[in-house]
Amino acid sequence: MHFADRLTDRIASTSPVCVGLDPQLGKFPAEISKDAEGMLAFCKGIIDAVKDTASCVKLQLAFYELLGWEGMKTFWEVCDYAKSKGLVVIADGKRNDIGSTCEAYADAYLSAGKPVDALTVTPFLGSDGITPFIDRCAKNEKGIFILVKTSNPSSGELQDLPIGDETLSEHLAQMVDGWGREHIGKTSELSFVGAVVGAPYPEDLKYLRTLMPQAPLLIPGYGAQGGTAADVLHGFLPGRKAAVVNASRSIIHASSGPDWREAAAGAVKTMANELA
Amino acid sequence: MHFADRLTDRIASTSPVCVGLDPQLGKFPAEISKDAEGMLAFCKGIIDAVKDTASCVKLQLAFYELLGWEGMKTFWEVCDYAKSKGLVVIADGKRNDIGSTCEAYADAYLSAGKPVDALTVTPFLGSDGITPFIDRCAKNEKGIFILVKTSNPSSGELQDLPIGDETLSEHLAQMVDGWGREHIGKTSELSFVGAVVGAPYPEDLKYLRTLMPQAPLLIPGYGAQGGTAADVLHGFLPGRKAAVVNASRSIIHASSGPDWREAAAGAVKTMANELA
Repeated sequence: MHFADRLTDRIASTSPVCVGLDPQLGKFPAEISKDAEGMLAFCKGIIDAVKDTASCVKLQLAFYELLGWEGMKTFWEVCDYAKSKGLVVIADGKRNDIGSTCEAYADAYLSAGKPVDALTVTPFLGSDGITPFIDRCAKNEKGIFILVKTSNPSSGELQDLPIGDETLSEHLAQMVDGWGREHIGKTSELSFVGAVVGAPYPEDLKYLRTLMPQAPLLIPGYGAQGGTAADVLHGFLPGRKAAVVNASRSIIHASSGPDWREAAAGAVKTMANELA
Repeated sequence: MHFADRLTDRIASTSPVCVGLDPQLGKFPAEISKDAEGMLAFCKGIIDAVKDTASCVKLQLAFYELLGWEGMKTFWEVCDYAKSKGLVVIADGKRNDIGSTCEAYADAYLSAGKPVDALTVTPFLGSDGITPFIDRCAKNEKGIFILVKTSNPSSGELQDLPIGDETLSEHLAQMVDGWGREHIGKTSELSFVGAVVGAPYPEDLKYLRTLMPQAPLLIPGYGAQGGTAADVLHGFLPGRKAAVVNASRSIIHASSGPDWREAAAGAVKTMANELA
């Protein structure tokens, strides 16, 4: 099934909540070992706690790479586990390269049978750094989310620069729309080429959504980074469609006590209610 | 020793050649197995062949990630081996993220004792995505190369966009100069904040060098991608200083016959002579 159709069905049957699996060893509950094995146990516990409420999990590759190859082994095991529980799995790698290197990234994460549904991609290199991903998505029913406007305070240093009478982000949004236009799902009428637009910039989100009417949006920056339910509202299409909202720390590290699973389950339900 | 001092000494005692360890299984010699173990054997063979001529090796992370955690194990083993042979080791990951995630990438690759000297970084997220790397470089005597103008045909789609009367790349070059200014080595008078500027755009290289007079440059796109010795000349400071020129396929896959080591050794010497 086309990625956007799969994502849309999953949101409809759960919620637009995406849980960021960005596990920080220093914040683990006492019972969990502070290593790659502990990271696996921790992520499995969180997945069990959120799987009936969240539509997606998003794994920040950096936290797995930090533990070397053992961490990468955990990364793939966590993806497998999340997939087996019905979650849509997003690898947040912000990968970017060209030619055969870009193809290698695309094959590494978006091959048929791999337990990753979508990858985040940074567009700095232009279409040479995008089309190899699109090829694999088309072939293997996967998706990408291209960074358009990120959630961090300094995102404007480049992304808000004026290109004629538009910003770099607005210019990029139109490129994303163009890249995605030929790759629309049957039931969702959305593309498998999505975009990342941060919650802390609601006015940008509102306008960028109009420039990308068929792109699924991945909206980070909710909760700990300051984005509210009112802020992210503009990212959805009618019927609470076509967007997922990511929160990480506020869910997975909601408690570091013995009640960490229950705290995560509670936090994800609260967030789903806020977005409803 | 400060990264730029170390790099400068190494270039002076060898050459400005950086060998791209972007191993493609399909191009391996018949005697090498097409898996992570074979990749390690292949890279070790190439390192032995080039270690007395090249200053640096640059590992494209994508090709190691493509083989899953076993590939990442190989990545670290190759870095260890290259380091033990005196080469400067560059991890070409084009990583980019913010906050604690950016710190995780920085710690993953630029921690004290890790066999990586420098990492490539994509600047799309602004200074939030750069300063955590700079912090680690300052603490652990490492370096970064920030993408400013890449070597691919579509690099201009974003990087040549006009910001007032300059291009995005020119704007970025000034940011790189600013980020690096306080981090200058004693003997080299260069910063540990370097930049990536592609060989196929010699006029850009010439002008961008003037905007970043203290940045070590990593120049890809030599050989297979079309850049010549005359093209890359503009990237150096007087005395053939402050730049390394990367070639990959033309060296590591110079032959897939039984003479692959000798062919690589020959290709790297030819390139060093061209640049001399």
